[in-house]
Amino acid sequence: MLKIGIIGGTGYTGVELLRLLAAHPEAEVVAITSRSEEGIHVADMYPNLRDHYSNLTFTAPDTQKLAACDVVFFATPHGVAHSLAGELLEAGTKVIDLSADFRIKDIAEWEKWYGQPHGAPTLVKEAVYGLPEVNREQIKTARLIAVPGCYPTATQLGFLPLLEEGIADTSQLIADCKSGVSGAGRSAKIGSLFCESTENMMAYSVSGHRHLPEIKQGLELAAQQPINLTFVPHLTPMIRGIHATLYVKVKDHFTDLQKLFEQRFANEPFVDVLPAGSHPQTRSVKGANMCRIAVHRPQNSDLVVILSVIDNLVKGASGQAIQNMNILFGLDETLGLTHTALMP
Amino acid sequence: MLKIGIIGGTGYTGVELLRLLAAHPEAEVVAITSRSEEGIHVADMYPNLRDHYSNLTFTAPDTQKLAACDVVFFATPHGVAHSLAGELLEAGTKVIDLSADFRIKDIAEWEKWYGQPHGAPTLVKEAVYGLPEVNREQIKTARLIAVPGCYPTATQLGFLPLLEEGIADTSQLIADCKSGVSGAGRSAKIGSLFCESTENMMAYSVSGHRHLPEIKQGLELAAQQPINLTFVPHLTPMIRGIHATLYVKVKDHFTDLQKLFEQRFANEPFVDVLPAGSHPQTRSVKGANMCRIAVHRPQNSDLVVILSVIDNLVKGASGQAIQNMNILFGLDETLGLTHTALMP
Amino acid sequence: MLKIGIIGGTGYTGVELLRLLAAHPEAEVVAITSRSEEGIHVADMYPNLRDHYSNLTFTAPDTQKLAACDVVFFATPHGVAHSLAGELLEAGTKVIDLSADFRIKDIAEWEKWYGQPHGAPTLVKEAVYGLPEVNREQIKTARLIAVPGCYPTATQLGFLPLLEEGIADTSQLIADCKSGVSGAGRSAKIGSLFCESTENMMAYSVSGHRHLPEIKQGLELAAQQPINLTFVPHLTPMIRGIHATLYVKVKDHFTDLQKLFEQRFANEPFVDVLPAGSHPQTRSVKGANMCRIAVHRPQNSDLVVILSVIDNLVKGASGQAIQNMNILFGLDETLGLTHTALMP
Amino acid sequence: MLKIGIIGGTGYTGVELLRLLAAHPEAEVVAITSRSEEGIHVADMYPNLRDHYSNLTFTAPDTQKLAACDVVFFATPHGVAHSLAGELLEAGTKVIDLSADFRIKDIAEWEKWYGQPHGAPTLVKEAVYGLPEVNREQIKTARLIAVPGCYPTATQLGFLPLLEEGIADTSQLIADCKSGVSGAGRSAKIGSLFCESTENMMAYSVSGHRHLPEIKQGLELAAQQPINLTFVPHLTPMIRGIHATLYVKVKDHFTDLQKLFEQRFANEPFVDVLPAGSHPQTRSVKGANMCRIAVHRPQNSDLVVILSVIDNLVKGASGQAIQNMNILFGLDETLGLTHTALMP
Repeated sequence: MLKIGIIGGTGYTGVELLRLLAAHPEAEVVAITSRSEEGIHVADMYPNLRDHYSNLTFTAPDTQKLAACDVVFFATPHGVAHSLAGELLEAGTKVIDLSADFRIKDIAEWEKWYGQPHGAPTLVKEAVYGLPEVNREQIKTARLIAVPGCYPTATQLGFLPLLEEGIADTSQLIADCKSGVSGAGRSAKIGSLFCESTENMMAYSVSGHRHLPEIKQGLELAAQQPINLTFVPHLTPMIRGIHATLYVKVKDHFTDLQKLFEQRFANEPFVDVLPAGSHPQTRSVKGANMCRIAVHRPQNSDLVVILSVIDNLVKGASGQAIQNMNILFGLDETLGLTHTALMP
Repeated sequence: MLKIGIIGGTGYTGVELLRLLAAHPEAEVVAITSRSEEGIHVADMYPNLRDHYSNLTFTAPDTQKLAACDVVFFATPHGVAHSLAGELLEAGTKVIDLSADFRIKDIAEWEKWYGQPHGAPTLVKEAVYGLPEVNREQIKTARLIAVPGCYPTATQLGFLPLLEEGIADTSQLIADCKSGVSGAGRSAKIGSLFCESTENMMAYSVSGHRHLPEIKQGLELAAQQPINLTFVPHLTPMIRGIHATLYVKVKDHFTDLQKLFEQRFANEPFVDVLPAGSHPQTRSVKGANMCRIAVHRPQNSDLVVILSVIDNLVKGASGQAIQNMNILFGLDETLGLTHTALMP
Repeated sequence: MLKIGIIGGTGYTGVELLRLLAAHPEAEVVAITSRSEEGIHVADMYPNLRDHYSNLTFTAPDTQKLAACDVVFFATPHGVAHSLAGELLEAGTKVIDLSADFRIKDIAEWEKWYGQPHGAPTLVKEAVYGLPEVNREQIKTARLIAVPGCYPTATQLGFLPLLEEGIADTSQLIADCKSGVSGAGRSAKIGSLFCESTENMMAYSVSGHRHLPEIKQGLELAAQQPINLTFVPHLTPMIRGIHATLYVKVKDHFTDLQKLFEQRFANEPFVDVLPAGSHPQTRSVKGANMCRIAVHRPQNSDLVVILSVIDNLVKGASGQAIQNMNILFGLDETLGLTHTALMP
Repeated sequence: MLKIGIIGGTGYTGVELLRLLAAHPEAEVVAITSRSEEGIHVADMYPNLRDHYSNLTFTAPDTQKLAACDVVFFATPHGVAHSLAGELLEAGTKVIDLSADFRIKDIAEWEKWYGQPHGAPTLVKEAVYGLPEVNREQIKTARLIAVPGCYPTATQLGFLPLLEEGIADTSQLIADCKSGVSGAGRSAKIGSLFCESTENMMAYSVSGHRHLPEIKQGLELAAQQPINLTFVPHLTPMIRGIHATLYVKVKDHFTDLQKLFEQRFANEPFVDVLPAGSHPQTRSVKGANMCRIAVHRPQNSDLVVILSVIDNLVKGASGQAIQNMNILFGLDETLGLTHTALMP
């Protein structure tokens, strides 16, 4: 039974970790921290947890107690893991960071997009980017894992087969992505109010979103060459879900794209290539650790359209974090992650 | 491993049975019928099921095949179970009916509300009303179980402690109930369209709803006397959830109601009495087989307000059906039913 | 052309005043104040206003400029109008207050529910409660109008005919009310986030809500006797709308309630009694200054059920405020208020 | 006062025509037809219309009565206007068709996409495509107007300035469009149910949507050359609104795009170019006859991103139809169309 610590457990990725770990047969949450909610029972904030966490209370961070865990998840805003991860690693605790702190290898690039000095540049080199479909082997032996962002997960999984195969025209990739509102987190912002975001659709950060350099880094590694990417995120009036609509020109007209995608993900437990002609729905992965993908070539053009959906809080965050934990500790990769999506 | 058959599996209670049974360690769905969708793979209709039911296809009803199951669930419109249940029972198969066909003991009353002759009056007497919090012992030895309706489950669980204790003024009970749209099922009706039901709230069937006689029957059994009940259902713009707001005058001003409720449900795995002063949220049970209840006495009046929430598709239908199955077959009552609600 | 000032124009009742006044042929908004948004163009906050208010900017409150208006609307949190209304009235400006500051005649009661000393008790006596269906004559000659709250408007209009007629059993009135989320205003609160309030239904403030004393005061005036009222508000996942479901026992079994309601509101331009058997939908008044009411007597019982719906931001706030303005200045009461509700 | 007839008034574009015409000072609806709802009062179907149409009842189509109107709107499924429009035109009645029957000049193309023979090919040549921002002069003298579709309106207005200026790379235009559910109309389809479409996002018809040839025709006329267009529509969980996200490479790096767009639409009452850096929200046009556009050049790339939003039922259908009517009859183009969008 793994002993789990969670730092910053009051947000949506925190409660989602608790929901998923409640069903994990080899994990036990022994500590969850929050400075603002210290002393509050987790179920007072999230009553759905009453059934499984009768005795779990938010505490102030206690490094000694956390270091005694087998693994500590950071479900914190960016910057927080920088200062704490090192100490835990030295104590022999594995660290799985759901924030953006260790995702980008280029320190200057990180600092440009996140607007602050990087607090732990020496750890960045060691950190493994926790996309199992790409880095499964490295994850097995990692100490520090940077869990991919939600947009980056959906987008990279959709583009990967074409880039790895070398048939994508990398001079212009477009990712038109639609996200549910939970992607903005559980902070009291006007823009996330019900009355501001329901019955509404809008793009945001068109001039540049923080996930752009992360996606680009992953795609260039896959393509083994520089790429141009235009990434436009949109806010959609739903709680969960990311729908990535990806556009890319293919250089080879004759490749069987359906087969290419099916083969690429044939052994992946959490990537599901739908039959040709399908349109994946975000609700088909609501609450599930799954990415569903369909590939289209409208009017037999060379401009390929890939549709890729995930639940931003599961395969785009907490579920993927647990998938990494399973790999890291030699467990069955799917352990505790076989929830069926809620439909309707 | 129990062999399960499902009749009429295309509706929302059908897919919810499949979602829940996918996580049940002692159950295997071996047959699912639908005349309209014969030959269609279940996952073509509900892509969330791709991960667990790779080989399950809707078939036309085949009595012999169904009779070979340990238990058959009816997830059909009313009237269907009347004609098929008897044959299965004779073959030794247990029947758990999610429809209203065997809930009401008074045949004339059933015929009045459902507008058709009752097709199996002799089975009604034998049928056990599957509310485990009331009839657990009878369920254990039943052959035929009538799973309670969604409104009746939330309403009866909320009123029961006061009625059983004999302190309710039974001359006027009021149940003001709010339901999500999935209660109307998966049929193509104008009133259930997104554009007709979102951003809207309305009462319906104020002059009389089919769940009224079912609720009344249960409450009168608990109270051991006739009662007057006004039941007003409302349609609420959400998929799942019933919120019952119950009003009843108590005759004894000094009873500790909080304690009464806590004691009544102390040993119930699927009824959660919240701390005094709480307001249960329907989302706290979304996807979970749970009823959460709070009891209030505003301004210290004798008019008590009880708040009771369930997920209409789980504790109000398919989850409760599986809870009955567990009891019926001597399994742990909570087996396969410990999902944590999805929040957010 | 009336010169209009608005104090505190950044909230939902403020923008709704601007939306409605844009269509009013005899009104011109000359000043709108907000300390927090000083210098910001109103259309930068609410882009729907770009088409009608090309030159209107939030300013800091300037009493002299406001006093030069014919009428000033307060769309402020409670307490603000206390300190400013007096000065404007002395300058001869009419004041229409959308907050709760002057609604309750009993100063001690106000202070109990609002948790602060009343800042202008001498003005309370003079203030006219701006429910035109009750106080039209007094509104005509008022200087200071207290616009009713949203719940109080829907609830009072529904109960009035029975209370005025003297046939209601006043020992137990119940108002089970459901409100859209905009009733909580445009402030950045966790509970009003999209992810916290969509796909959810819950009661709140069951132990006592601030609108309770306001409703009670109005109902007792109508009944000319003390009443007992249980008021349970609920939060519903929609932007706009209040649905009041009212329960009251009638003492006279033979009154034609449909006729009673139709006659009571026969000359009211903004109260619509629906045909017998109707179920009013909140969306049928979305954006419109209208209250639609239906009266039911289920199973011919003496417990009457009244359904009353309004748009909380229009007939429950800004539209009713403008209706008061029209009466106050001798204009056609319906001027600028004849919008058709948006359906779908 | 114009006498108006509406054929097929039971759908969402029909009720929206009624809502908008209720506020039009020069229009009177004298006939509205529906075979299925003959004899039903319009307000029984749409209670929001109770306030303005106390005496309007659906009738069976009566050509003589319709021919006596000044103008007849077709709010019908495709194919219906083919058989009736000719007769009305001969009688001297103007026809404004909201369906797709006369939009596409190439008869074979129409027949390919709509899967049936064209019923009135001789009228197609005469029909004017009713996009006032392009064809205002021809509309003035037209007899028969084909009102553009919703996707085509948002998409063409967004692309036009670049195509007309000749600086777009026409070899690859991409329109990633998101629509509210009302675009699917008021028919009882499973896919349009609340429980199927809320909390969900999905693409559809990626292999080819009927609006593709209409958009292409308009863009090629503007560009004066062939173009390649990839058009991917998505279903979004909201009632109203289209958000078009358009991608196009520009050949000239130095054009001031913001200025280009502002100048192109400087005199257009219903196209609003937002300040540089803006992200238009669909709710900012909810209920309003307005298209709001923003133009972006992310990371100073040559791939331009244009954001264009409309209310599909207003500027995308019924509002634009009335705008055409105003032009056709020499009225002020904005008459009856100055509603402010509902926010929140």
